Amino acid sequence: MRILLIGANGTIGSAIRKELEARHEIIAAGRSSSDVFVDLTSPASITAMYDSVGKVDAVISTPGAVHFGPLAELTPEKNEIAIESKLKGQVNLVLLGLDAVNDRGSFTLTTGVIMDDPIVGGISAAMASGGVRAFVQAAAIEMPRGIRINNVSPTVLTESFSKYEPFFPGFVPVPGNRVAQAYRKSVEGAQTGQTYTVY
Amino acid sequence: MRILLIGANGTIGSAIRKELEARHEIIAAGRSSSDVFVDLTSPASITAMYDSVGKVDAVISTPGAVHFGPLAELTPEKNEIAIESKLKGQVNLVLLGLDAVNDRGSFTLTTGVIMDDPIVGGISAAMASGGVRAFVQAAAIEMPRGIRINNVSPTVLTESFSKYEPFFPGFVPVPGNRVAQAYRKSVEGAQTGQTYTVY
Repeated sequence: MRILLIGANGTIGSAIRKELEARHEIIAAGRSSSDVFVDLTSPASITAMYDSVGKVDAVISTPGAVHFGPLAELTPEKNEIAIESKLKGQVNLVLLGLDAVNDRGSFTLTTGVIMDDPIVGGISAAMASGGVRAFVQAAAIEMPRGIRINNVSPTVLTESFSKYEPFFPGFVPVPGNRVAQAYRKSVEGAQTGQTYTVY
Repeated sequence: MRILLIGANGTIGSAIRKELEARHEIIAAGRSSSDVFVDLTSPASITAMYDSVGKVDAVISTPGAVHFGPLAELTPEKNEIAIESKLKGQVNLVLLGLDAVNDRGSFTLTTGVIMDDPIVGGISAAMASGGVRAFVQAAAIEMPRGIRINNVSPTVLTESFSKYEPFFPGFVPVPGNRVAQAYRKSVEGAQTGQTYTVY
């Protein structure tokens, strides 16, 4: 398959690429060091990316940007980061990308454990992920031409646990290659409207 | 209690008012025919509302605006209606209202059945509701001074079923006074972080 992978250089993106590149053509998109530039917060940039890439069989979006910080300091402006990137960025990737995906292709978006299992400072991340999960479930029943849509909700990763452990007390990390299997299931499988939790 | 009810003139708002006004002081807020004006899509308007109302024991938000329409016609611009009103409007009501709520007071937001049980045309509504539900669950663990936060997720109402039935095939409507009990539970009870489904 021809797979457009947004955020291919991140921890999760790298693990997905490693898992999929032996069997598929990967087109990496992102804000730097990628085959194609895209800024998910700009609908015009998303459209330009699709125009330059042409038809694909799968679109995978890795985690967008969010503000982490306590409720007491969470302003509407800081909350806007998650809305613009992780929520609207991923939603618009679908709304603007339907014509770019071949029949029976797929979209795979990324949510995260905090929407099910909250941590202090994770309100914005939870909100955006909850919106994406419900969007995926609702969009799945209306996708044209057999196109499927799922989301993967990973917990904290082993590769970045030394950095995030203080914020995730008692959370058990999972390795990136385990998380990558959920994306593989979404792309190579036949299910739609699913939330694949990797907790 | 002193209760600020946003959207008091809607079908759900009217039912909530009828249920609560015998035991509590209700301050109605909305865009017309209310005690206090508020436009939920404007953080400045939300702040002005709280400034004019003073301290309250509970804030109740009834359903915000969303665009209903099929995926094939859903643009980022149309999707923005639900993001600005039902999602950000309700989230900002909390972020900007913490200081206006007395100790052990509460916020009660509104989601909806479509986030759990999608219908054609309901993608935007599902997305916004899913975001609000996850926000509520995450915010609950960080609320100061014993303030609680819940959301009520109603199915389609008996009072408006003649209008909406074609879009909700097989959904069984519930009367407004039944839905109002879930808001009462949130305001007069002691739970927090909950989603009260009335399906």
